[in-house]
Amino acid sequence: LNAEIICVGTELLLGQIVDTNSTKLSQYLASLGVNVFHKSTVGDNLQRIVESLRLAASRADLVIACGGLGPTQDDLTKEAISAAFDVPMVEDPESVEHIRSFFQRRRIPIAASNLKQALLFEGGNALRNDFGTAPGAVLEIDGRTIACLPGPPRELIPMVENQLLPYLRERHGLKRVLRSRVLRLAGMGESAAEERVKDLLGGSNPTVAPLLSGFEVTFRITGTGEDEGAVEAGILEAEKRLRQRLGKEIYGADDDTLESVVLGHLRDRGLSLVTAESCTGGLIAHRLTNVAGSSDTFLSSVVCYANAAKESLLGVRRVTLEGFGAVSWETAREMAEGAMRELGGDAAIAVTGIAGPGGGSDEKPVGLVYIATALPSALKVQEYHFAGTRLDVKQRTAQAALEQMRRAILHL
Amino acid sequence: LNAEIICVGTELLLGQIVDTNSTKLSQYLASLGVNVFHKSTVGDNLQRIVESLRLAASRADLVIACGGLGPTQDDLTKEAISAAFDVPMVEDPESVEHIRSFFQRRRIPIAASNLKQALLFEGGNALRNDFGTAPGAVLEIDGRTIACLPGPPRELIPMVENQLLPYLRERHGLKRVLRSRVLRLAGMGESAAEERVKDLLGGSNPTVAPLLSGFEVTFRITGTGEDEGAVEAGILEAEKRLRQRLGKEIYGADDDTLESVVLGHLRDRGLSLVTAESCTGGLIAHRLTNVAGSSDTFLSSVVCYANAAKESLLGVRRVTLEGFGAVSWETAREMAEGAMRELGGDAAIAVTGIAGPGGGSDEKPVGLVYIATALPSALKVQEYHFAGTRLDVKQRTAQAALEQMRRAILHL
Repeated sequence: LNAEIICVGTELLLGQIVDTNSTKLSQYLASLGVNVFHKSTVGDNLQRIVESLRLAASRADLVIACGGLGPTQDDLTKEAISAAFDVPMVEDPESVEHIRSFFQRRRIPIAASNLKQALLFEGGNALRNDFGTAPGAVLEIDGRTIACLPGPPRELIPMVENQLLPYLRERHGLKRVLRSRVLRLAGMGESAAEERVKDLLGGSNPTVAPLLSGFEVTFRITGTGEDEGAVEAGILEAEKRLRQRLGKEIYGADDDTLESVVLGHLRDRGLSLVTAESCTGGLIAHRLTNVAGSSDTFLSSVVCYANAAKESLLGVRRVTLEGFGAVSWETAREMAEGAMRELGGDAAIAVTGIAGPGGGSDEKPVGLVYIATALPSALKVQEYHFAGTRLDVKQRTAQAALEQMRRAILHL
Repeated sequence: LNAEIICVGTELLLGQIVDTNSTKLSQYLASLGVNVFHKSTVGDNLQRIVESLRLAASRADLVIACGGLGPTQDDLTKEAISAAFDVPMVEDPESVEHIRSFFQRRRIPIAASNLKQALLFEGGNALRNDFGTAPGAVLEIDGRTIACLPGPPRELIPMVENQLLPYLRERHGLKRVLRSRVLRLAGMGESAAEERVKDLLGGSNPTVAPLLSGFEVTFRITGTGEDEGAVEAGILEAEKRLRQRLGKEIYGADDDTLESVVLGHLRDRGLSLVTAESCTGGLIAHRLTNVAGSSDTFLSSVVCYANAAKESLLGVRRVTLEGFGAVSWETAREMAEGAMRELGGDAAIAVTGIAGPGGGSDEKPVGLVYIATALPSALKVQEYHFAGTRLDVKQRTAQAALEQMRRAILHL
């Protein structure tokens, strides 16, 4: 079964709102094993909506239009479906009742235009709207299924979950399940990671696809079929093969974050963590404390932007700051050692660098960063060069620092 | 001039990521007075990308394709443009150089597949990528402009702003201007703010529209026309009327952030800032240090999750922690005073609270937060109750803390 999604609304073409409806619908359709080959967005213009509907129906078995069911003159989706497929519209008594009672409950007088929303397709089915006045509709015509849904996500999503999906499952005998698993890497570039597993990519069921997501590389394994056990076994087998190649480069799966994994490794070993942050300015601590329950492992952090703070709070020696500079291998090391000593942690992450846009020099350009990771018996300091905006440099540094700590714990 | 946007990527059709590129592009095109009548999304399939490009070129003067410029086998947008419009691809020496030096700077070995990204269209122009390896391209063919852009927003947006828009303006003689100004409020709810300026909303040119954006209320004034001076005068007049009503509730305009404004007020008064963070875990320091040049005013921060850290780093008294608890009016005050004393700042922000999901009790529920702001001659501690997830509570707390400091400085 192939589907096409059409989003209707001039506000989408003007960039006034971000479309999340089609994203959500795509997820639902994928989970049923329905392919989506095209999505399109069209404004509140009858002729263009009609053309988009006809094009979609020429290449898909299922066409889902979102938006344009409101009471105003701009809302034209149902009129367009009626015109595109030559289906008359008739008043749906249940929808009239629903709209009337909706306004009565809110003690708002009903406008004539609101009853326009009760017009549905002859021979079609209404989709009840539990969170608004506009019913959706579904229609079978010329071997195709055409559905229209209200634009507001809080109306659309429950309508899809509770009515459209069960209808599609029943009507088209859809028994397929779709399962996926995401493996996450933080220490390798996309090309390098792909190079290592090139022959395992693609595939048809399960599929394995790489994706750069934020500052991470992920591999998504997706399987589909009617036998849930077989689908899951296939995914597990693909995961095993990827893990054989990538080993400990994979830091986690699915909803794992690098920070939650690092905290987990430290917790397993009974080690507490402290951080000393210069150029990241608190971002590493912020990420660590986003993890629920982090307080049992993460103790404290010092954000020491000023040199004086590096001396007074972390005991970095003035001779080090003056001799090598605040952004140096030596300062990073003393920050990590000072953080363990002064803040009382078993493990420490320390970063110092130049986030920019100012503050760089030929010798020490913007993006130069030193990261120190300290464990009870291992200290490592590494130099990095990051590109991008100030925020990019902060984010790349935080990511690299957490990954360096993960590797230090696992002796990678 | 009519434009059409094509987003390329199977991940979009599977609902794995939300498309914000086309939203942003739509805004830019609207600002030039370019109409967008259609957007479409297509997967990583050569034939379907070719068909989408041809359809777009049949109904628009300008076709912009986003995504599919990566180094992998799935990245097919340039191949599709080459096939759809019968244009050969040639290696662009500058792009080769850019890609090589990108990898050299990062000390990463270059893969052969990365050089595929330097292939561009014969007779076309490269769009330099300042934040990644994939150059974009723009091509004039049969009276149409075809552009392709990289998928990652942090690469696409600067490329559009700095290169594509100037190119389109020049090439198509676009003279219409659209200007807008955003006024920002952090201390009032949306309904309350709207109530205060109800009669000033709407309008046709300029328009005034309220919007809840993150945890802030904004009013966007938008004017359009060919006479730039008249457009700007209209916006200025609308801004004046809004400011008369909202006064110092407006913390800033356009790209101002609450953190940049707070730092600016302190800098103007010659005051340095330190922070002491418990439940925000470094987020306030992270926001402050996102501001370029913050190091002249923001000195340092202590993230003290553990009680021991509150004692040892900030000198909060044990009797206070034991008598009133770590989340209390008294602890917040001692954290602020301790931060000024121990970290040597003229002003301090201190927060302590329960971000959840665990750690709450009947007496001190999740979302209870105390914020202390200290200035040389003024200390204020305030109790707040925030709802939402752990991250929501952290973000609302950071926002409220910065706003409390802004009000303290302005004696609001």
